[in-house]
Amino acid sequence: MPADTIQQQFAFLAEIDKLKSVLRQTTLIDRSRRENSAEHSWHLAMFALTLQDHATDIDIVLVLKMLLLHDIVEIDAGDVPFFAEGVDKAAMEKAEQLAAERIFGLLPAGQGAEMKAIWREFEAAETPSARFAKALDRLQPLLINTLTEGGTWNDFGVTEDQAMNRYGAIINAGSPALWREASRLVAAHFTKKRAADAALASGAKAG
Amino acid sequence: MPADTIQQQFAFLAEIDKLKSVLRQTTLIDRSRRENSAEHSWHLAMFALTLQDHATDIDIVLVLKMLLLHDIVEIDAGDVPFFAEGVDKAAMEKAEQLAAERIFGLLPAGQGAEMKAIWREFEAAETPSARFAKALDRLQPLLINTLTEGGTWNDFGVTEDQAMNRYGAIINAGSPALWREASRLVAAHFTKKRAADAALASGAKAG
Repeated sequence: MPADTIQQQFAFLAEIDKLKSVLRQTTLIDRSRRENSAEHSWHLAMFALTLQDHATDIDIVLVLKMLLLHDIVEIDAGDVPFFAEGVDKAAMEKAEQLAAERIFGLLPAGQGAEMKAIWREFEAAETPSARFAKALDRLQPLLINTLTEGGTWNDFGVTEDQAMNRYGAIINAGSPALWREASRLVAAHFTKKRAADAALASGAKAG
Repeated sequence: MPADTIQQQFAFLAEIDKLKSVLRQTTLIDRSRRENSAEHSWHLAMFALTLQDHATDIDIVLVLKMLLLHDIVEIDAGDVPFFAEGVDKAAMEKAEQLAAERIFGLLPAGQGAEMKAIWREFEAAETPSARFAKALDRLQPLLINTLTEGGTWNDFGVTEDQAMNRYGAIINAGSPALWREASRLVAAHFTKKRAADAALASGAKAG
């Protein structure tokens, strides 16, 4: 291996340190602060290790690679929340492509091309491994939202139908078993929220 | 699979969210704040993916599992800096054992036992995969320190000999090729530091 291979790899590893400063909309479960994309990626890899038996035909190494890599383009392109509106998708995709070229381009050519291909396979969501990785990328914030009284759903005014439809399509495609449990959590959250809203309205009327 | 398997797994995945709040001594490369153990674990997994060809006889899935899991015990036991002095190692090991029992104990029994076994294999550092994982766990802060004018080495008054000996033993055991490049970075850092210290002393004398 050429001597500068390691130097290129170290430069890439130093560059991706910046993912620790890309903030997501989601908070930590204790709500102390917003989550960043590096720790989110770690959490997703742990989701994959823990939940892999609920998917079929997946390659767990490939799933782990996808989840570890999938947000690196955000260093240049930023994070777009799942329920954000008015996003220019074409411009976003272009920015992410350029980011992938620049950041994975820091690596020795063959290795950079391999990582870019894994990132593209994740984005396309056509293989069982990519669909499972995408499912986990939605399941993690769903779980956090149900544990933080709605979390980002409140910020974006997300209804139960919207949550069921948008998460359901992606999580069910990766793992029907996980969606069965996750949809139960979504339903329980909105039932509780309706009861709390009703109690508040009746309290307001009484007062 | 029993219905409550997923519930136990979700409880574990929610619990380990706390690793995002365990702070290490090391800062981010931009020095904006201290690094937490969850994003550190992500960074290490990326080190493993990127640098795996510089090790021999490793099982990359096992290395990834070790690096993703290895700090989870810190949720209860806290992080101990590499150069900290006066640490009661027996008490620390006991606290980590109890933490492993409690946290991996949230999982279905077979899965919890498997993760505990992987954590113990990492701690023992006797297999090629564990030695490579340990090497990366030292290489990452070494790289950050060389990119932040010494970083935590300044906090702990670490000399060049101490850095060479303590990192060298662990990194070289996992990958002689990586230690060759890393030791070059350590030497370059201390050479630069000596020059800066000398200029400062001569400036002080002149002033």
